[in-house]
Amino acid sequence: MTQNIPIVENIMNANDRLAEENRARINAAGVFAINIMASPGAGKTSLIEQTLPRLKGKLRVATIDGDIATSIDSDRAAAAGAQAAVQINTGGDCHLDAVMLRGALEQLDLTQFDLLIVENVGNLVCPAGFKLGTHKSVLIASVPEGDDKPYKYPGMYRGVDALVINKVDLLPYINFRMDYFKQGVEVLNPGVTTFETSCRTGDGLDAWVDWLIQNAKRK
Amino acid sequence: MTQNIPIVENIMNANDRLAEENRARINAAGVFAINIMASPGAGKTSLIEQTLPRLKGKLRVATIDGDIATSIDSDRAAAAGAQAAVQINTGGDCHLDAVMLRGALEQLDLTQFDLLIVENVGNLVCPAGFKLGTHKSVLIASVPEGDDKPYKYPGMYRGVDALVINKVDLLPYINFRMDYFKQGVEVLNPGVTTFETSCRTGDGLDAWVDWLIQNAKRK
Repeated sequence: MTQNIPIVENIMNANDRLAEENRARINAAGVFAINIMASPGAGKTSLIEQTLPRLKGKLRVATIDGDIATSIDSDRAAAAGAQAAVQINTGGDCHLDAVMLRGALEQLDLTQFDLLIVENVGNLVCPAGFKLGTHKSVLIASVPEGDDKPYKYPGMYRGVDALVINKVDLLPYINFRMDYFKQGVEVLNPGVTTFETSCRTGDGLDAWVDWLIQNAKRK
Repeated sequence: MTQNIPIVENIMNANDRLAEENRARINAAGVFAINIMASPGAGKTSLIEQTLPRLKGKLRVATIDGDIATSIDSDRAAAAGAQAAVQINTGGDCHLDAVMLRGALEQLDLTQFDLLIVENVGNLVCPAGFKLGTHKSVLIASVPEGDDKPYKYPGMYRGVDALVINKVDLLPYINFRMDYFKQGVEVLNPGVTTFETSCRTGDGLDAWVDWLIQNAKRK
């Protein structure tokens, strides 16, 4: 299928160009934007649900939620206090791209927000390959997924600016070697900003929320 | 990007044709073949590890493990007693396709086996779209992923022949509404063969192993 490669490259170039346009639009509005990526069920929506009440009165937040189907995620974000929540249904696509984000951005008056949280489709592979125009990429790793994931999904772990190790409340019930996990992360992404959280107990969420606030203040 | 669609269709047709060739090859050898799909960390390799010792002396098993990187999975399958374990590293691809499976099948003398277990790349989206030529598709759903996954990944849930609900030992520690989960499954895939398992405690594994043996005996 080598005849396919030039077209794939053209698509990636087109995506990168649109991502730059998205970034310019976000910057012009003075918004800090993150792209949250993870496996299905790692806790992307739960983290957003727990984050929004903690930002109340501090940052005005818009969320953009990408999913194959349903508006479950944006409904949850709106219920948790997002000032605006836009759902992107990708149909069958396993990741968001810059075109989809542009469509969602057009539904928002960005000047009304300080923080834009983009929740990508649950997938540890393809979302890593598509820039959206956000400032920081955040990966949520979930303890029940197992400690070998950095080794098996290096592209995703290599490219992110922050790592949230979630569901740490389940550590007592699971064979998860934190040292082995972190060794893998360190090889791929030395010194990456890391948070250990539980959206059930609230552990570690203050540090995560502080990081968002500090980054948003710089915009 | 509409100019792209005819090429995608051609690839899918080519894949389906190759999948039929794979199926013919597998049938000629009298082997029963399954394609296990799931999110990253749902327990594909753990299920295979727990299955192999239970099949000892009953079925001769070959495994083919697909991953972005590493041979962790095939090493684990070999250690657990697979008579042969072939690793496919997809490079960056987020799913196996029929070409990759053909390459792996060429490394096996299929007449030496009763059961072929193909472990797909961890992903709830793309693997559903690529036939491999196996007889049955098996989805592992992991309790910590959450009870909304059938609703959010309908394509995957719709297409499978059997569903393994894994990590049920974690149910006491997680807010997972089994009724809500099963309602979603029932809409998409009425009456699908379902197992509830824990690879940690061994719960439910006998029924799963019996299902494999019954299917293999029919070949």
